[in-house]
Amino acid sequence: MKADMHMQEAIRQAKKSLSEGGIPIGSVLVKEEVAIAAGHNQRVQLNNPILHGEMDCLTQAGRLGSFHDTTIYSTLMPCYMCAGTIVQFGIKKVIVGESRNFAGARAFMESHGVEVVDLDLPECISMMEEFIKEKPELWNEDIGK
Amino acid sequence: MKADMHMQEAIRQAKKSLSEGGIPIGSVLVKEEVAIAAGHNQRVQLNNPILHGEMDCLTQAGRLGSFHDTTIYSTLMPCYMCAGTIVQFGIKKVIVGESRNFAGARAFMESHGVEVVDLDLPECISMMEEFIKEKPELWNEDIGK
Repeated sequence: MKADMHMQEAIRQAKKSLSEGGIPIGSVLVKEEVAIAAGHNQRVQLNNPILHGEMDCLTQAGRLGSFHDTTIYSTLMPCYMCAGTIVQFGIKKVIVGESRNFAGARAFMESHGVEVVDLDLPECISMMEEFIKEKPELWNEDIGK
Repeated sequence: MKADMHMQEAIRQAKKSLSEGGIPIGSVLVKEEVAIAAGHNQRVQLNNPILHGEMDCLTQAGRLGSFHDTTIYSTLMPCYMCAGTIVQFGIKKVIVGESRNFAGARAFMESHGVEVVDLDLPECISMMEEFIKEKPELWNEDIGK
C-alpha cells in the first residue's frame, strides 16, 4: 500500500523528531478526512516518558469532547500505552506505517473492536530499523525494556 | 485497609485538582518505599485529554530509564490508557484507593502480571461519587464515553 497524505505528515513528524535528536515516530489525528492534530515522540526533547508519537498527537488535539469519530495514524504499531489510550478514548481506526520493527498491541486493539490497518511501508520500516541499530538503548527505554 | 502515607499524598493530589476545578484523581510513584513523583488529573487545568492522574505523575517522574522497580498509587482504578502504560513500562505493582466508581482495567493488568491492590477506601469512594454526581459530563469525557 501507499502512504496517503496523512501518513506522509506522520512520516514528516517522525523525521522532525529524528532531526531534534529524538525517536522517529510520528502521528496524525484525522476527523472527517481532515487532519486535526499531529505530533511526534518527545521522550528526549521534553524528558517525558509518556509522550510517544500518538500521545503527543492527542495532547496537541486537546479536549475534543469525544474521539469516537477520529482515526489515528502512526508510523509504527502502537504499544500498550498508546493502544490502551486508543481503546479508552473510543478511537475506532488506527492506520500504521509498519509493525516489522515492533509488533505492538495489535491483537489487544482488535479484541476491543478497533480496526487496524498496517500499510507496511518500506520508508517507515527502514527509518525505524536504522534508528534501532544506531540507538538501541534509547529504543529499549522507549518500549519499557 | 488504611491509606498509607503514599495513598494519603495521592488523595491530597486529588483534592488539589478538585480545588483547581479539575477531576479529583491523584497518583504517586514510589521507588524503594520513597515517593519519587506525584501528580493529578490535568484534563481541565491543561486542556489535555491524556493527563489522567497516573499519566501526570509519570510525566513528573521524567525519564527514569526503567520503571520496573516502581509501584504506582492511584486514588481510582486505572483505565485502559493508564493500565496500558503500566504494562508497557513494566511497573509491577498498582495500589488503588477504590474501584467502586470505576471498575477500570484490573483484569487486563493482572493478565500481564501486574499486582493490583484495591484499598477500597471510603474517603476515595465518596470523593469520586460526589464528583461524578456533580459533574457527570466531565467524568464521561474523562473516561471516553
